[in-house]
This record gives sequence, structure tokens and C-alpha cells, in this order.
Amino acid sequence: MSLPSRIEIREEGPREGFQFEKGEIPTARKIALIDALSETGLRHIQTVSFVDARRVPGMADAEAVCAGITPRPGVAYNALWLNAKGFLRALVTPNVALEGSVSVSASEVFGRRNQNRDREQDLAAAAALMALYAEHRVPLRRITVMAAFGCNFQGEVPIPAVLDRAEALLALAGGAGLTAGPQRPYLSLADTMAWATPLSIQRVVGAVRQKWPDLEISLHLHDTRGMAMANAWAGLQMGVARYDAAIAGLGGCPFAKHAGAAGNICTEDLALLCAESGVATGLDLDALIEAGRLAEDVVGHPLPGRVKQGGKLVARA
Amino acid sequence: MSLPSRIEIREEGPREGFQFEKGEIPTARKIALIDALSETGLRHIQTVSFVDARRVPGMADAEAVCAGITPRPGVAYNALWLNAKGFLRALVTPNVALEGSVSVSASEVFGRRNQNRDREQDLAAAAALMALYAEHRVPLRRITVMAAFGCNFQGEVPIPAVLDRAEALLALAGGAGLTAGPQRPYLSLADTMAWATPLSIQRVVGAVRQKWPDLEISLHLHDTRGMAMANAWAGLQMGVARYDAAIAGLGGCPFAKHAGAAGNICTEDLALLCAESGVATGLDLDALIEAGRLAEDVVGHPLPGRVKQGGKLVARA
Repeated sequence: MSLPSRIEIREEGPREGFQFEKGEIPTARKIALIDALSETGLRHIQTVSFVDARRVPGMADAEAVCAGITPRPGVAYNALWLNAKGFLRALVTPNVALEGSVSVSASEVFGRRNQNRDREQDLAAAAALMALYAEHRVPLRRITVMAAFGCNFQGEVPIPAVLDRAEALLALAGGAGLTAGPQRPYLSLADTMAWATPLSIQRVVGAVRQKWPDLEISLHLHDTRGMAMANAWAGLQMGVARYDAAIAGLGGCPFAKHAGAAGNICTEDLALLCAESGVATGLDLDALIEAGRLAEDVVGHPLPGRVKQGGKLVARA
Repeated sequence: MSLPSRIEIREEGPREGFQFEKGEIPTARKIALIDALSETGLRHIQTVSFVDARRVPGMADAEAVCAGITPRPGVAYNALWLNAKGFLRALVTPNVALEGSVSVSASEVFGRRNQNRDREQDLAAAAALMALYAEHRVPLRRITVMAAFGCNFQGEVPIPAVLDRAEALLALAGGAGLTAGPQRPYLSLADTMAWATPLSIQRVVGAVRQKWPDLEISLHLHDTRGMAMANAWAGLQMGVARYDAAIAGLGGCPFAKHAGAAGNICTEDLALLCAESGVATGLDLDALIEAGRLAEDVVGHPLPGRVKQGGKLVARA
């Protein structure tokens, strides 16, 4: 086990957070947070999701948010879409990095609850998106297996189910001609409902590695059961070099029906762990802490991240 | 690295929590929480501290709390004292397990701020307590090195300073005849100001192990910077089999002057990590979750523990 020398932290706070918050957040404040995040060294910021505003009212202003930000060179402003309609909205929206992504659920029960799709429909939807990416020459950057560590509705998710879903997506991507080129897609293992523990991180990552030694792995972790940082540490010990995170710990999946869902792993807390572990992130921890405090101000209630209160590891006068 | 098959979690929530809370908590509610904790399988519960009520108003009712609980056979109800005056109060209070403890700070700056003692005075105070333990035939169970991983005021704390303080305490204990017998004292490494990271846990625990291969180690972790669970996992990977924890994540040191100090590592969250990692704790997770919710009700504000909201890893109907 050796730590990676450098990792990429992909910020999902704006998208995860604003879709989850109950009250209405003014568009200008969302933009202010994204602009603050642009100054932290982050290279990927997921700003919005192009989804049905009746289902996710907090994303009704997705186009306005994207149009309003001040894009910083070198930063990719990603977005989430789940179907052709969403993708086609993203295509005509300014300041959206067109990086293709598809996701399926390793738990069929969750897939039906979250997207009303069975296993075959889940794959068919991914195939339809891939066809669109091929048509529009959008590279496929990321394939996601959701509920890869367990499911609130199904319970344990066997590792073969995770491998099976990843294999199916990789086969589809290969068939669509989307796995060639310098930027091959990586596999995001999403702990959608916070079932992961350090041992299951070791097991699932290990199984994926064994099957596809060259496939890059990313971890999407939630802190609903307090395990996110231990899980990230387990991932770092396995050499995993990509993580999603959310500033101040924003977010949570509105369809996972957690009681009191805590959000994603907190960006600035993860950045502190890395900084103290000799793992480069390219991030400015002071700027992240400021952005974390801004996020808390924007949503108007305390957010779970710790370092924005606890501070960096520096002696105080 | 192999996980211990069984660990001991020592509950410090009542003492850490009630000394930290700003509002007055009725004595009967403190008792109710301790009685609930008695039903969770915990074998050590630190209930109160015998300290100056002018300095720590939340502990003014320490004797009444101890007198009021319903002691459960097999549970040791510990207390904290920092000097002879406190110990002599504990001696005449019912339902206090007389297990001797001494602590010194690895950071001289913190020692001066916390107890107004320099290094020599710190040791002299420990020696005075040990003399009292010898006089009253109270076994010395625990020697603590505070600020063992860093200090908000001094900054980094070198490992030799930690070893030096432990060595000085062990020498004093040996001189006082307190290290013989079946129950030798163990060493508590306290991350008093939440400076520990998984790597520093590895380094400090490793250095202690190298110097004293047979000395039992305990970890006292705070979550002020979000690292507590990752640090506990690092400890488990090192085979450390004793942890302090606080129900619902109660607590925080009122003298450490954290901005927004998060409390100790949360008992029920740590118990979940252990349960999912095959590490026995003897704890009833359902009962802990109930106690965590009660703790939140008793203090009247949200507490940081996650599992009391997020729930166990079981599929829901």
C-alpha cells in the first residue's frame, strides 16, 4: 500500500448542494460560490444538473447559473445530465465542459427507485447517451456505478454485481467507439447511500483492479454514517487518485431518502488530509476554507465540514 | 497491519460533553443519559470531572450526578480529577470507580495554558497524584500524554517529546510501586487539539511500540478537523485496541480554544466502523443510537455524530 503522489479532487458541491437544499437560493449567490471555487485551484467543478425542474426545483436556474459564472481558464465546469433531454440542454448552455458521463446502479432496487429503470433499462439509457456522445463528438470521460458499496433498500451489493455493471458499461463504450483516444473513461465507484467502510473500499477497489489493472478509479463518498474520511484514507492507501468532494460537505442525494443525510465528503477536509499526508492536490486550503464559509452563508445553515471551523494545522499566536 | 479482534471503547461523553456545554443541564437529565449508556454494553463510562466549579460550571453537580445514577454491575463509572482536591472528592463520592490516572502534556505551551504548569510542575503534579494513589491503594490504570499529535499553540509536537513524557510518567509510576500487579497502566495518547492524521497516528504509535513493545496503547481522538474516524481506522490498522469516544460526538476541551470545536470521536459511529470491520466491541449499536439521540435531546442542539441520523447498515422496507 502506497499513497499516490498526487490526486485530483473534483468539486461537486454546487450541484450536489443546490439540488438538495430545501429553500430557494438566489442564482447570484450560486454564481458567487462557483466563482469563489474557481479561485481555489480546483480543475473540475460540477456546477449544475440539467434535470426536470419539477423534480429538482433547486436546478430550475441551471442555464442562468452557467451563463453567469466567470469562467477561469484551466477549470472545467462540468454538469450532470441523466438523459438526452438534459444533455441537449447542456450542449447549448455556455460554460459547460462537455465531458460525457454515464451511470448505472449496481443495486437494481435503487435503480428502480432513483430512475424508475430496471437493469436493462438502466443500460439502455446509458447506451442512448453514448450514441449521442458519439454523434456530437463528446468524449466519454466517466462511467459510474452507483450504490457500489451497498444500498439502503437492497442491503448488501455483491462485488460481482459491481463488476458486472462496470463491464457492461465498458463494453457499450467500446462498441460506441468511445474508449479510444488519449482520455479513456475512468470508473467512478459511487457510495451513493453511504454504505462503504474502509474494508469494503479495499475489497471493491481491489476486485476492480484485479479485473482491469489499467482502469483509473474514482471514489464518490458520502458521510451519512461518518465513514467518508476513513474511506478516503482507505482509497488513498489503495492508490486511488480521483475523488469527488463537496465544499463544506454540501449535498446528499434527495432520492436516497436518508434520514438526515449528511452530504458528500468535504472538499477542504479531504484537502487537509492530503496536505498532511504528502499527497499533492494543487488546492489552496485557505481559499477552500473561505469558500466553505461562503457555502455555509449561501445555504443559510451550518454545513458539516470541519476544517472551516477547526482551521488548518498551524500554531496560533 | 492486522485489525484487533476486539477493542474496548471507553465512553467519555457525559464528562466531555457536560463540561463543554454552555447552558445548564439539569442533573436528572445527565443521570438519565448515563443510565441509558449503562444499557449499551459499555464497560467504562466517565461520568463527571471533579474540578473547580468556578472554572467548569457544568461540573458543579458532579457528586449529585454520581449519587443519582443506577449503577449496573460490570460497568466502571470513571471520573476525571486533575489534583489531590479532585481525587479526595472522588474518594468519598458513591459510584465512582477508583482507577488512577495521571496526565501530562507533550506540548509545554499547552501545559501552561491548560493547567498553568511548566514541564516540571506537570510531572510534579502527576507524582503527587501517584503518591495519593499509593497511599489509598488505588491502582494506576492510565497514563496520558496530552497534545501527543500537535498543539494549536506550539504547532508540531516532536515524537521524542511524546516519548520523553511517557517515559517520565512510567518512571514515576515504577518508583511509586504502581506498575506491578495484573493491571498495569496503559498509555493514552491524546489528540487533545485534533492535530492527528492517519500518518501521524502510524508514526507516534509506531514509535511508542518500538520503545515499549508490551505497553498497551489507547487513543483519545477529537474530530475538530474531520480526521477522527480516519485516525481511528489508522489505529485499528496498527492493532490499537483501546479508544475513548463520546456518545453522539459530545464534547470538546473548553480550554483548547478551538473555533467551533467538534467533540470527541463519536461512540456509535466508531462502533459501526468496528461492527462492519469484524472488530468486536461488545456494544449494542441500537442502544447506542438511542443513547445518541437522547444526548442530543439532553443538550438541546444537534450533535455531530452521524449514525444516529444515518442509521445502521440494514436495508429498509
